[in-house]
Amino acid sequence: MSNGRHLILDLYNCDPGILDDYEELQRLLEASLVMAKANILRIIGEKFKPQGVTLLALLAESHASIHTWPQLGYCAIDLYTCGDTTQTHKAAEFLKQKLKAKISEQKELKRSVAPITSV
Amino acid sequence: MSNGRHLILDLYNCDPGILDDYEELQRLLEASLVMAKANILRIIGEKFKPQGVTLLALLAESHASIHTWPQLGYCAIDLYTCGDTTQTHKAAEFLKQKLKAKISEQKELKRSVAPITSV
Repeated sequence: MSNGRHLILDLYNCDPGILDDYEELQRLLEASLVMAKANILRIIGEKFKPQGVTLLALLAESHASIHTWPQLGYCAIDLYTCGDTTQTHKAAEFLKQKLKAKISEQKELKRSVAPITSV
Repeated sequence: MSNGRHLILDLYNCDPGILDDYEELQRLLEASLVMAKANILRIIGEKFKPQGVTLLALLAESHASIHTWPQLGYCAIDLYTCGDTTQTHKAAEFLKQKLKAKISEQKELKRSVAPITSV
């Protein structure tokens, strides 16, 4: 049985310098996922021109993503994990703080599986 | 201004064979993203043991992901794109059909940016 939790964060008024710093964002994402006890299998990313960064983390428990718009101070983060061992709320709090978000919106979607035996 | 649309699909009673076929899933994901007019920068993935596949697509417009649980016939798909050029609903319909989902739940989140000038 999958027990999926999908945290969706929209962070506003973040530090634009950090939002455009690929290496720092990767370091923060990794640290947040370690803190959440997620198992990172691979991280890929892209530094966009003139600005903006995307990072995608492939996890044993599903995935995490960060997309940034430094010019707007805005950042969209997804933390989607399955199972009962991860603590993604800790990762979310850490990232909000490190990105210096002054305003944040957070949603949590349950993506659990309810097997359907007849249609 | 970012105009983010995040389609979230939970597909049930899919074809378990397709859900465990890494190459076929990658082919279908790529085809769906081309259909949606998204620009694929890179795709990574993992074939889990004993079963299950994760695929992550890094897009110029954000990202797409597929996580499958063949043993449950269940699949979680995210299609998150920014800008007005992509047509992710087409990708969603294509994937529902190709994965032979008998039941699907679909949500669309607006992740547009509303810059906040004072806190």
